[in-house]
Amino acid sequence: MAAAVSTDGQGQEVPNRRVILKRYVTGFPSEDDMEVVTGTARLDVPPGSAAMVVKNLYVSCDPYMRGRMTKHDRPSYVPDFVEGEALVNYGVCKVIASGHPDFKLSDLVWGMTGWEEYTFVPKPESFFKVNHPELPLSYYTGVLGMAGLTAWAGFFDVGKPKKGDYVFVSAASGAVGQLVGQFAKLTDCYVVGSAGSDEKVNLLKSKFGFDEAFNYKKEQDLDAALRRYFPEGIDIYFENVGGRTLEAVLSNMRTHGRIPTCGMISQYNLEEPEGVHNLGEIIVKRVRMEGFLVFEYYGQYHKFEQEMAGYLKEGKINYVEDIANGLEKAPAALIGLFTGRNVGKQLVAIARE
Amino acid sequence: MAAAVSTDGQGQEVPNRRVILKRYVTGFPSEDDMEVVTGTARLDVPPGSAAMVVKNLYVSCDPYMRGRMTKHDRPSYVPDFVEGEALVNYGVCKVIASGHPDFKLSDLVWGMTGWEEYTFVPKPESFFKVNHPELPLSYYTGVLGMAGLTAWAGFFDVGKPKKGDYVFVSAASGAVGQLVGQFAKLTDCYVVGSAGSDEKVNLLKSKFGFDEAFNYKKEQDLDAALRRYFPEGIDIYFENVGGRTLEAVLSNMRTHGRIPTCGMISQYNLEEPEGVHNLGEIIVKRVRMEGFLVFEYYGQYHKFEQEMAGYLKEGKINYVEDIANGLEKAPAALIGLFTGRNVGKQLVAIARE
Repeated sequence: MAAAVSTDGQGQEVPNRRVILKRYVTGFPSEDDMEVVTGTARLDVPPGSAAMVVKNLYVSCDPYMRGRMTKHDRPSYVPDFVEGEALVNYGVCKVIASGHPDFKLSDLVWGMTGWEEYTFVPKPESFFKVNHPELPLSYYTGVLGMAGLTAWAGFFDVGKPKKGDYVFVSAASGAVGQLVGQFAKLTDCYVVGSAGSDEKVNLLKSKFGFDEAFNYKKEQDLDAALRRYFPEGIDIYFENVGGRTLEAVLSNMRTHGRIPTCGMISQYNLEEPEGVHNLGEIIVKRVRMEGFLVFEYYGQYHKFEQEMAGYLKEGKINYVEDIANGLEKAPAALIGLFTGRNVGKQLVAIARE
Repeated sequence: MAAAVSTDGQGQEVPNRRVILKRYVTGFPSEDDMEVVTGTARLDVPPGSAAMVVKNLYVSCDPYMRGRMTKHDRPSYVPDFVEGEALVNYGVCKVIASGHPDFKLSDLVWGMTGWEEYTFVPKPESFFKVNHPELPLSYYTGVLGMAGLTAWAGFFDVGKPKKGDYVFVSAASGAVGQLVGQFAKLTDCYVVGSAGSDEKVNLLKSKFGFDEAFNYKKEQDLDAALRRYFPEGIDIYFENVGGRTLEAVLSNMRTHGRIPTCGMISQYNLEEPEGVHNLGEIIVKRVRMEGFLVFEYYGQYHKFEQEMAGYLKEGKINYVEDIANGLEKAPAALIGLFTGRNVGKQLVAIARE
């Protein structure tokens, strides 16, 4: 399996371990749908090219990746993975070769990279520089990266919170949920989170400052649980899970409630997604349900990064990561998102700097 | 059944035929759930009172009334009807007694009134005056009243149309749908409507200027039909029906599409509403689905009335009514909304002026 290492006039060829998608997935994915193999990588860029080569340090595990593991008939907002090739997702990297004027050797950057040791990046323009290396580098896979910007854009821009709003967050201890809850508290909202274990529920209250939290697996009747926590109803539901949770929430929305719709993780692995039967509530309560995708907010990333770095340094935002060490652990880490195994933001450490 | 007519110092008591709700309804309503009975009415108001008595000329039949025929555990945005009492809904009336400074004898008004010959109105403030008696009076049950304001607010304020948008309207020949389609054409949009008979489909194209129209009952695969009419996808879906139609539409929405959510008539009579299984499309396409209720737009009614009266007089908006003559026909007219029997806006003529 180990590739020969050779050096020629144009640079060095080295072994490159990578996590590939073995086959497209239907239903619940398993570790066996992926495989860790060793290929090779060149550590240089062709003369005159504006490409770069990065060494991958941390890669993020995100629920939306499930969609990319299935072959789609119609193109979606993000391409399907390619069978036999490395998975790709947001990661933090070090530049080890660059022909691009904006990126130089040893720069720390984050962007869409491969689940492998080294990645050739033909268009580095899509990468962001790491402007706060004084904070943990891994944070750029989450709180200072995609998940952070997602929570910030979804809560503030789509959710339009007001002081005193009643806010409910599902998947609340995950990468995005834990931040939404804290943004809600910074906005003087009342916020309740749901999660899938008592450990996570405890974390929500003790670490992230949620006013209340509950283990949805212990609730026979989610509608009744929500009525208990929100006797006045819900102004903002930050939607991460979909299905039956959404149905219970719709019955408990307040007039002019907002549902920033970020993800529906409970549905991604179902061959037949659950139906939502009470969308009439959207009319009766005059609810706005609005989907968003983080890449439309990239233009505001630097504003966000500065604001979030400030919160982190002042201790106004706490952040919990669940780090899998080594590419070999990456398939299990990804699958774990769908069983709720992770506590906090799941990522994979490929290499230390 | 006929009541004695008496006159005393305070005024006249006359027979008053009315349509009452015999019993609360579950599932599909029938004419038998209502009954035409004769009570009495006084044609005066107590001295010093600011109430009025109106003679009802036309009352509107609207799908939302189905909700009021069921007893609800939790209060909704509009009260349930009361067993044994007359149904109430928007109607056009003539003032025959008034203690209110804004309303005088013989004024033509429209507002929430009873399904009966005469109605005592304790709070006339909720009524609007008819400012354009040169147009058919019955129009104030629809195009110049609630349905018109609904179409106008939902399309323009919630839908936020732009020139060139691709617009789909369900229940398109109904009171609201026919107007939405014509607003879309006035905005230089491409508009397709669906309806439940070939006669209605023909009306959409010949009378209301829809670019295309189809009979949804003849389409085996609604998703395929929408792909045929909207190869580029749908920017605005004006939602009147819900259920399977909504599901098919979601698969065909364009990025940043809007769904002004006005009603879900296909679901009102189902004991268990249909589930919608593909709400994930809201995320992928970044769709905004937003419910609205007309009464939040009452403040803009006069602006709307003036604009709409202008369109009607200039022939820019066509309007088709389906008039049932006499209170005896009112129960069948209301039930007919749910079988799609009406062609155009359904109303009941109780008395000519």
